[in-house]
Amino acid sequence: MREAYLVGAGQTAYGAFPNESYRSLFRTAFEAATNSVPKGLEAAEIDEAFVGTLGVGGRQLGLSGPAVTEHVGLDGIPCTRVENACAASGFAVRQAVQAVKSGMADVVLAGGFEVMSDTSSDATKYWLGVSGETEWERLSGTTFSGVYAQMASVHMETYGTTREQLSRVAVKNHANGSKNPHAQLGFECSLEDAQSAPVVADPLTLYHCCPTSDGAACALVVSEDVVDEYTDEPIRVAGVGAGSDDVGLFQRDTYAGVPASQRAAEQAYEMAGIGPNEVDVAEVHDCFAIAELLAYEDLGFCEKGKAGGFIESGATELDGTVPVNTSGGLKSKGHPIGATGAGQVVEAFKQLSGTAGDRQVDAPVYGLTHNVGGSGGAAVVHIFERETAVSAR
Amino acid sequence: MREAYLVGAGQTAYGAFPNESYRSLFRTAFEAATNSVPKGLEAAEIDEAFVGTLGVGGRQLGLSGPAVTEHVGLDGIPCTRVENACAASGFAVRQAVQAVKSGMADVVLAGGFEVMSDTSSDATKYWLGVSGETEWERLSGTTFSGVYAQMASVHMETYGTTREQLSRVAVKNHANGSKNPHAQLGFECSLEDAQSAPVVADPLTLYHCCPTSDGAACALVVSEDVVDEYTDEPIRVAGVGAGSDDVGLFQRDTYAGVPASQRAAEQAYEMAGIGPNEVDVAEVHDCFAIAELLAYEDLGFCEKGKAGGFIESGATELDGTVPVNTSGGLKSKGHPIGATGAGQVVEAFKQLSGTAGDRQVDAPVYGLTHNVGGSGGAAVVHIFERETAVSAR
Repeated sequence: MREAYLVGAGQTAYGAFPNESYRSLFRTAFEAATNSVPKGLEAAEIDEAFVGTLGVGGRQLGLSGPAVTEHVGLDGIPCTRVENACAASGFAVRQAVQAVKSGMADVVLAGGFEVMSDTSSDATKYWLGVSGETEWERLSGTTFSGVYAQMASVHMETYGTTREQLSRVAVKNHANGSKNPHAQLGFECSLEDAQSAPVVADPLTLYHCCPTSDGAACALVVSEDVVDEYTDEPIRVAGVGAGSDDVGLFQRDTYAGVPASQRAAEQAYEMAGIGPNEVDVAEVHDCFAIAELLAYEDLGFCEKGKAGGFIESGATELDGTVPVNTSGGLKSKGHPIGATGAGQVVEAFKQLSGTAGDRQVDAPVYGLTHNVGGSGGAAVVHIFERETAVSAR
Repeated sequence: MREAYLVGAGQTAYGAFPNESYRSLFRTAFEAATNSVPKGLEAAEIDEAFVGTLGVGGRQLGLSGPAVTEHVGLDGIPCTRVENACAASGFAVRQAVQAVKSGMADVVLAGGFEVMSDTSSDATKYWLGVSGETEWERLSGTTFSGVYAQMASVHMETYGTTREQLSRVAVKNHANGSKNPHAQLGFECSLEDAQSAPVVADPLTLYHCCPTSDGAACALVVSEDVVDEYTDEPIRVAGVGAGSDDVGLFQRDTYAGVPASQRAAEQAYEMAGIGPNEVDVAEVHDCFAIAELLAYEDLGFCEKGKAGGFIESGATELDGTVPVNTSGGLKSKGHPIGATGAGQVVEAFKQLSGTAGDRQVDAPVYGLTHNVGGSGGAAVVHIFERETAVSAR
């Protein structure tokens, strides 16, 4: 199989930007991505593009891919919009890898964007709801915080997970996010803050829920034939995995795990030829605090049911055995739906290229990203491998 | 490059089906596709799926791919929604080909669906409008018939194309559709009918415009490693091409052609190693009569500006040198947006496997499909090649 390499990735800050449009945000992310390529990369060298967005607000629901790629000067190339709810641009990155491996393209852009801050509260509820099952979730009034609250309740009931353990996810991710200039909620939060915050959907408090965000992110994937033109420190796409599932939580056998994540992880580890213990740094889908705990188990970082103790052990902190969400994650960095998956790849790129600043972990070789659509109707996992030793910076 | 093969394809009838859902329509198309595979194909053998839909009506905007693949028993496999407006499932087929060529999958489903008949007239205007440019087209009141009317006007002004020539597209496609049991408007229309019908957007009359439709279609693409398990009469995906462009017609240099189609065709011919003269049968994107005439030129079936005379010559009729839209096309067969591209592949499969019934053309070797998103913001072309002689049936 033809090898694919990640040679650049960049993003906007996440937040509320009333003076930006989805096009201008995408342009900022695109320029950050091309500028991050060690030996440079021009728009004219890009063969193909995949763009992820849910299209919150509905302003450009059709052809939103070409609408942004044309805006950054990618005239005429094949461009495809990819959508799997909150995993839209995680899947866009996967399609970029397939395009390269297929031999049909050498240099591929995978990006995503979302603008959520100009959407009313009711409309946001609709737009987030469309990533759940329509008849039995959205139209019956179930919100996404409600869905994840059910998952949290079952995990607490079954495995004895506590609300304090959920809060520790928020504390860790805000601590990381406070070191990330792109984070939307880039401030620290104490355990007391997280514990005493208003309840959104019992047992989840405000600090157990990610914000809604504007933002864009882009990644650049190239083939083995051209990688030397772009970098001397190649980061290989070692593993790719994806899975799907019933869209509605109520349709599934388990509430205390995400089977699509397990399938995606299994494929990615097999392709990469490594196990979870070899992952040096990971970005996981923490739309709600329980989602990060479930990810620890689904990705094999700890045994089933043990995620609560795992976060308490400090294993996933910046200096732990497997630092998770060094960027701040969806919780602190933000969650502009269509941008999130590509944004996770931005953090993996920074960590593996040694450019993560104050949150840099020590000489990572394998970086993993994990992006979930809805409550687990789709999931995608990438494993990136730094092939050369990290140079001193 | 690893070869990909089309081993099956099937669809629902197109029309208005108040007693069906998007899931039940998809199931019908899926079963028609698997049943069309000469040696049979079970759901459990499918490695991956791509699903195209615009999501008209908004009932399941997020994760609509997994929502239908789970319904047909494709539990857990990677499933990605692909959207490029009216070219959604044309691009889904392209992604299936990339997935196979990448080596990441051997058996891939590409399908699409749309339900439009339960949507109000105003809502339909919105949903079709989102495939145009938002600020300067949709929000300024431009409809899709208006956009294509502008293209028709410029072609008539520049090249002397006549309304009668536009009407001949309708006459031909209705004649073909009357031979297709899946056609929504499966009746013949006379030149007089087309000429005297009410004007929708000058110069386009009602018979120059396709209907809105419910429907679904599926295609099955497999790798060279497994094709023998599914058929003894392989149909190779010889060429694939795609292009993008500015989403708004007003942003482009020309109104009398679709540059994205030209780019897609050029790539597809180059990959297939053939020219337009070798195409034996084609399905082209005739959402409006002018679109079929533009396609003749963009695909190289005739010279620039000569499409009016070309339709008059009879070259694109069932017994012509290059029969076009033998299925009835979008005009007579129907245009359920997300299903259309895969539905074109269904007709190519039928023609190349000699199962097109009363509309079968004589022993075709190369079949081409051409699917356009919006007014040309995206386009995709496939060239299929029958590798064995057509057997007597």
